[in-house]
Amino acid sequence: MIMGDRGTGKSTTVRSLVDLLPEIRVVVGDRFNSDPGDTESMGMEVRERVTKGEDLPTTTAKITVVDLPLGATEDRVCGTIDIKEALTEGVKAFEPGLVAKASRGVLYVDEVNLLDDHLVDVLLDSAASGWNTLEREGISISHPARFILIGSGNPEEGELWPQLLDRFGMHAQVGTVRDAELRVKIVEERARFDRDPKGFRESYRAEQEKLQRQIASAGNNLGSIRIDHDLRVKISKVCAELNVDGLRRDIVANRAAKALAALKGRDKVTADDIATVIPNCLRHRDPLESIDSDLLVIEKFYEVFS
Amino acid sequence: MIMGDRGTGKSTTVRSLVDLLPEIRVVVGDRFNSDPGDTESMGMEVRERVTKGEDLPTTTAKITVVDLPLGATEDRVCGTIDIKEALTEGVKAFEPGLVAKASRGVLYVDEVNLLDDHLVDVLLDSAASGWNTLEREGISISHPARFILIGSGNPEEGELWPQLLDRFGMHAQVGTVRDAELRVKIVEERARFDRDPKGFRESYRAEQEKLQRQIASAGNNLGSIRIDHDLRVKISKVCAELNVDGLRRDIVANRAAKALAALKGRDKVTADDIATVIPNCLRHRDPLESIDSDLLVIEKFYEVFS
Amino acid sequence: MIMGDRGTGKSTTVRSLVDLLPEIRVVVGDRFNSDPGDTESMGMEVRERVTKGEDLPTTTAKITVVDLPLGATEDRVCGTIDIKEALTEGVKAFEPGLVAKASRGVLYVDEVNLLDDHLVDVLLDSAASGWNTLEREGISISHPARFILIGSGNPEEGELWPQLLDRFGMHAQVGTVRDAELRVKIVEERARFDRDPKGFRESYRAEQEKLQRQIASAGNNLGSIRIDHDLRVKISKVCAELNVDGLRRDIVANRAAKALAALKGRDKVTADDIATVIPNCLRHRDPLESIDSDLLVIEKFYEVFS
Amino acid sequence: MIMGDRGTGKSTTVRSLVDLLPEIRVVVGDRFNSDPGDTESMGMEVRERVTKGEDLPTTTAKITVVDLPLGATEDRVCGTIDIKEALTEGVKAFEPGLVAKASRGVLYVDEVNLLDDHLVDVLLDSAASGWNTLEREGISISHPARFILIGSGNPEEGELWPQLLDRFGMHAQVGTVRDAELRVKIVEERARFDRDPKGFRESYRAEQEKLQRQIASAGNNLGSIRIDHDLRVKISKVCAELNVDGLRRDIVANRAAKALAALKGRDKVTADDIATVIPNCLRHRDPLESIDSDLLVIEKFYEVFS
Amino acid sequence: MIMGDRGTGKSTTVRSLVDLLPEIRVVVGDRFNSDPGDTESMGMEVRERVTKGEDLPTTTAKITVVDLPLGATEDRVCGTIDIKEALTEGVKAFEPGLVAKASRGVLYVDEVNLLDDHLVDVLLDSAASGWNTLEREGISISHPARFILIGSGNPEEGELWPQLLDRFGMHAQVGTVRDAELRVKIVEERARFDRDPKGFRESYRAEQEKLQRQIASAGNNLGSIRIDHDLRVKISKVCAELNVDGLRRDIVANRAAKALAALKGRDKVTADDIATVIPNCLRHRDPLESIDSDLLVIEKFYEVFS
Amino acid sequence: MIMGDRGTGKSTTVRSLVDLLPEIRVVVGDRFNSDPGDTESMGMEVRERVTKGEDLPTTTAKITVVDLPLGATEDRVCGTIDIKEALTEGVKAFEPGLVAKASRGVLYVDEVNLLDDHLVDVLLDSAASGWNTLEREGISISHPARFILIGSGNPEEGELWPQLLDRFGMHAQVGTVRDAELRVKIVEERARFDRDPKGFRESYRAEQEKLQRQIASAGNNLGSIRIDHDLRVKISKVCAELNVDGLRRDIVANRAAKALAALKGRDKVTADDIATVIPNCLRHRDPLESIDSDLLVIEKFYEVFS
Repeated sequence: MIMGDRGTGKSTTVRSLVDLLPEIRVVVGDRFNSDPGDTESMGMEVRERVTKGEDLPTTTAKITVVDLPLGATEDRVCGTIDIKEALTEGVKAFEPGLVAKASRGVLYVDEVNLLDDHLVDVLLDSAASGWNTLEREGISISHPARFILIGSGNPEEGELWPQLLDRFGMHAQVGTVRDAELRVKIVEERARFDRDPKGFRESYRAEQEKLQRQIASAGNNLGSIRIDHDLRVKISKVCAELNVDGLRRDIVANRAAKALAALKGRDKVTADDIATVIPNCLRHRDPLESIDSDLLVIEKFYEVFS
Repeated sequence: MIMGDRGTGKSTTVRSLVDLLPEIRVVVGDRFNSDPGDTESMGMEVRERVTKGEDLPTTTAKITVVDLPLGATEDRVCGTIDIKEALTEGVKAFEPGLVAKASRGVLYVDEVNLLDDHLVDVLLDSAASGWNTLEREGISISHPARFILIGSGNPEEGELWPQLLDRFGMHAQVGTVRDAELRVKIVEERARFDRDPKGFRESYRAEQEKLQRQIASAGNNLGSIRIDHDLRVKISKVCAELNVDGLRRDIVANRAAKALAALKGRDKVTADDIATVIPNCLRHRDPLESIDSDLLVIEKFYEVFS
Repeated sequence: MIMGDRGTGKSTTVRSLVDLLPEIRVVVGDRFNSDPGDTESMGMEVRERVTKGEDLPTTTAKITVVDLPLGATEDRVCGTIDIKEALTEGVKAFEPGLVAKASRGVLYVDEVNLLDDHLVDVLLDSAASGWNTLEREGISISHPARFILIGSGNPEEGELWPQLLDRFGMHAQVGTVRDAELRVKIVEERARFDRDPKGFRESYRAEQEKLQRQIASAGNNLGSIRIDHDLRVKISKVCAELNVDGLRRDIVANRAAKALAALKGRDKVTADDIATVIPNCLRHRDPLESIDSDLLVIEKFYEVFS
Repeated sequence: MIMGDRGTGKSTTVRSLVDLLPEIRVVVGDRFNSDPGDTESMGMEVRERVTKGEDLPTTTAKITVVDLPLGATEDRVCGTIDIKEALTEGVKAFEPGLVAKASRGVLYVDEVNLLDDHLVDVLLDSAASGWNTLEREGISISHPARFILIGSGNPEEGELWPQLLDRFGMHAQVGTVRDAELRVKIVEERARFDRDPKGFRESYRAEQEKLQRQIASAGNNLGSIRIDHDLRVKISKVCAELNVDGLRRDIVANRAAKALAALKGRDKVTADDIATVIPNCLRHRDPLESIDSDLLVIEKFYEVFS
Repeated sequence: MIMGDRGTGKSTTVRSLVDLLPEIRVVVGDRFNSDPGDTESMGMEVRERVTKGEDLPTTTAKITVVDLPLGATEDRVCGTIDIKEALTEGVKAFEPGLVAKASRGVLYVDEVNLLDDHLVDVLLDSAASGWNTLEREGISISHPARFILIGSGNPEEGELWPQLLDRFGMHAQVGTVRDAELRVKIVEERARFDRDPKGFRESYRAEQEKLQRQIASAGNNLGSIRIDHDLRVKISKVCAELNVDGLRRDIVANRAAKALAALKGRDKVTADDIATVIPNCLRHRDPLESIDSDLLVIEKFYEVFS
Repeated sequence: MIMGDRGTGKSTTVRSLVDLLPEIRVVVGDRFNSDPGDTESMGMEVRERVTKGEDLPTTTAKITVVDLPLGATEDRVCGTIDIKEALTEGVKAFEPGLVAKASRGVLYVDEVNLLDDHLVDVLLDSAASGWNTLEREGISISHPARFILIGSGNPEEGELWPQLLDRFGMHAQVGTVRDAELRVKIVEERARFDRDPKGFRESYRAEQEKLQRQIASAGNNLGSIRIDHDLRVKISKVCAELNVDGLRRDIVANRAAKALAALKGRDKVTADDIATVIPNCLRHRDPLESIDSDLLVIEKFYEVFS
């Protein structure tokens, strides 16, 4: 979840993930971007072919960043079943929705605070379980839907239902650059891009590729990152003393700290890693008091960790 | 009815009942999970076959825990009748809903305080009577629907209509663990499960099976548990002095105390059994003052029972 | 109209009328439970057969207590006309509703304060006139609909429109038993019924039959009960001095006093009869002040009658 | 317009007009109750037959009192045109509504303050012009609709839009009888009617017939009743000094005074006639202050007329 | 725009314009009342016939005063296109609405403050441009619609959106006559008309015809009326100093003064002409303060013009 | 975005752009006004023909100023896809909407503050990206839509959602002329136009043509206008110190200053250019305080630039 000022490039940043995240291996032509190496989470057609012993043609592809349009219906998001056809055609009667398209990629909801709460709920369920299940008139179809859900919004334009807000893993807050020289630099970069998009991209290619490698490597190492019991207890102490409901925040903070350590190329989480991620893991409990709550989290961190 | 904080595992606990409750004998392929030994509450097709003297194939099955999706319609819940077909096909024109699917199992409504009051009313009627009756354009179809209705919700997100709240038998309240070491233990258990679900389940198998046997045995003995007249009067005195409307609370408290005695392997209810269950039987009269009312119930209990 | 606490058996009591009220003679198979001895109020098909000189097969039947489901539509209540069919088939194109089913019995509306005002109005019109008239696209069908309308509700859940409230004849108020021993007795009776419904019913059979005979006899004698002019004037004086709108309350109080005298086996109304019924005839003018208004009625009664 | 307490016989009184007003001559079978002697206001079919020189069969009939059901649609009230049929069948494609049925009789709207304002507007337009005009998709049909519009209601249940209220000609206010002896008399009359409707009607026959003759004679003489210029000026002075909007009240008061003189068998209006009718002609300007305004009118009358 | 008391003859006055305004020459049978002498603003069919060199049959006709019914839809007002037919039949697929019918006449909207704002907007656009344009599914049809839009209403019943109010050219305010003798005279005239409509009309014929000639002559001379620069500047000064938005009021006041001079048979506007019309041109800026604003306009006029 | 008083010619000014902006070269008959010299942004049909090597017939045309009607639907604005046809006919099944019609011209929304926010959002997206994308039931069609979006409105009639307001590039504010002589001049010009439109246009032809040449030349030179780094920093300093969200205002102010320099025939931006445009670029952040904010911008400009 990214909240912040208008015009700070929130959407542009999310959309750029397509170029930053590592490419994935997929079965050619599959509607669910099935991973050829993971039978458990394959789409139904691909699994059937595997069962029949077919040799699946695979390819490497960029991940997909799907933009959820404002006003999208549940049908558009989750897919539709043609009931009549379903009786004769089976799975083919299923028309996948945006969550299928976003499979193994990113589903991005700009102005998430304006989305219908019910739809946010459906999206969070799919994102959490990795499966999208459709039930229509007694017919039930499930397909894998492992995507990263990213929402963004401007806190001035309405709040998300706290129940839903709580289910987003992390929360970033974005503000406007106030330094005039830096603003000019950004304006000039933008003008440079407008004048010559190809040249602009070329000038950042090396930096971009380095970052890609770093992310890919972190992804591979994530499973082996360790975090000391003492640090875990301190994380839970911060959460408990801040009166956080449930244990989701503890789990998220553990995971985020490991991911940061992995990105930095280390195999063990440090207190600094936790200090960096914990405000983003805890602060979105109350969007109206986010700055105060942010300070509160940091204060509590130093109280517990020092 | 389970009310409490977000992220405390309410849903997970209810869904796990499928593994805790004893298996049931059902007629193979029957849409209402008819009990082969109970002619009175058989589904219509099965009863017809019994009447014809057919020999019914039976099997043993886990109970079903049906999750009521938010936004489910009455048709989805209670089933539908194809009017045209009904004239020629009779019972076959009936398409069972979720209450049929939940028959002899559990129907679970998360966020029950967000459900349409009318639907909650329909569900409580079915749960109380053990029958689901559908009337459409002069055609009336009834089928057995003996299920346990469990609702859960977060009191911050809206109240249930008091009339409906009153018809739930018992009420549990769930809070977040505040002890950091215990939190870490839970987070670690969760991580252990994420890493190796099979191993995790294996490690709890013995404990789980013991609990299953205890529940099954309690179910068999429930009919023979006694409760002294003196204790009954004291229960009713607690209810009367707390100004509870009607006698439902008295009936529920008697039943719950017997069930607890049965679970503990005794054949007689003790005052301790009543002390344990009575707050859950009475406290949900006013969700906004649940803690105070809880203390009030306990205080009244000690005043009456001492 | 019965108002009162939840869980006090209001619905159960109304439904039990089916066993208390005397059986009626009806024409076999008639959709309107036509009385073979009363040509005036026969259903259309039966009247036609009488006109043709047919010999009508009759039978004795229990009255029907029809439960009006919450959310019932006007079509469901009053019946529907198949316009196309009506042109060729006449009366057969009419599909009777719940008021036809309730003919000569009881129509029971639980939670009457939640029913759509328009539907309550329609029901009261039918109950008052004894006829149900349907007009659809220029086709008009009337059928006899002599039923007793009983509504019940909890005053905490909303008021009925005063205009409608006024048209209910009498008003009973029900509270929860506060005596613990009595509560236990009721709980035990309930448990006894749950364990052995047949035996339970058997144990009350003599008492039940005595009450049936008493009601039947009262019904037969009702026409010959007298009430002195002096008592009538006093009734009207009570009504006038309590500023009751219109004369409905006077008429109802006269009738109720006669009915009570008949039930007690007398042929003349006494002041005591009036004292017993008059609070139920007058008090429901203002549901929010029902207790005060009750005392007010009784006070006024003693002022006028002493 | 009749406003007043519930249960005071407002509806019963209006419905009884059918027996009081003189019978009318109508063309046999005509849908608009056309007057055979008044070519100007005949229905279209009858006028066509007159044009063709047909000899119209006529009969004498009671006027119709049409009860407007609450919730009636504009189609129900004004009639419908079957567009497709209209192209080939002409006038026959028109299905008359309640205003046609009420032609030359009374259209009665109980609870007129609950009727949709737009429909009241349509009714007042038809009543004022004596014509009902329907326009649907370019087809326009007009038919005579000379009816008396009577509305009734309880002022506690909502006000009519002042614009509409103003267009009702006269206003009667009805209260509950407070004298106990008189109440008993009414209750006894009602009981007498319930016991023997035929005998009851017979006992009032002579009185009823006398009133019928009086009304019929008044109707015939109405055209020749005179009212002195001096009295007219005084009427207008009352209206002007009470700050009445427009001149409708002046016109109505003149007409009502003439009608009263005619009913009394005189050929000239007296100041007493005006004193009797003028409160009913002016008072309904403000339903919430009707009693005060009533006194105000009477006071002003004596100030101007003395 | 005419605002004022109920019952002061606003509608009757507007409808009588049909007899006061000069007759117009029209093409026989044309749906848009096309002027045979003005090719620019002919309807499409007539223009086509002119193009083909056809000789158009013409006739003289009264103008039409179209009454816009409350609740009219945009389709009813602007016309409809039969899309399927449009592809094969062209212009014939267009079914003209009320603005076509009102062409070269008057479109009268009683209770204009109750009309849907969007429809008022559409009407004002057509009235201002003299054209009605319909766009449906890519098909666009325009036809001439040169009509005078007159609205009337009672200020107590709701305001018009200021944006729309501003676009009405002039504003008349009507009050009730307070002089009793004059009221009687009007009531008598009305009674005279009710008794003998033909005779009534005959008695005013000469006066009516004189007025018709005056209006016709004024219409012919309007183009040649002059208004001194000095007077123009003073008009604009009044508008500017009263803080009127935009220049519409200046334009309207110039035109109205010229029209009045023409009606009076002069060829030059005098300050008196301006004094007469300017309150009607400016006062309707704020309906709630119309009387004050009226005085304000007059005061400002004398300040600027003296 | 143009906000201001009613009747100040906002709409007329925007519509006149059609005569001021330079003509464009387009492919004959193309639905998207494709530029024959810019393959990147051609419509799909034209691009296909280019791909096939067809020689495209081109012509010179005025730009289109499309008026968005109040109440336009998204279908009307963005176009529609005939789903059935789409399967067989491809792109031909797409029916372009108003944004296609406005391609390379102007899309004008009067009363933009009354438009549905969602539609404004769609329009701003298309205007910003230069592409209009339609997705319906899995079919996705994109076409070039390079238009200038101009909105106008009266601030008294409602605000635009701040999120949308922010995305309009510039903001002009229009007030009523207060000088009487100037008003008369405008009124006279209008009268002159009404009398002789052709002559009126002729009298302004030279001036108009000069302005056209100036605009065309500025358009050609825009790419080569320079703006000193120091001035850029100062612009960003103004924006930053006024606490503007994001960097859109910096980018717009740079572009507007360049455009003004180009219009004045210079090749370098001066501080005066910036002083002229910067209030229009920044002030519309808060419509309710526009005048104050205007002064604020100017004050800040002088503080930073002096």
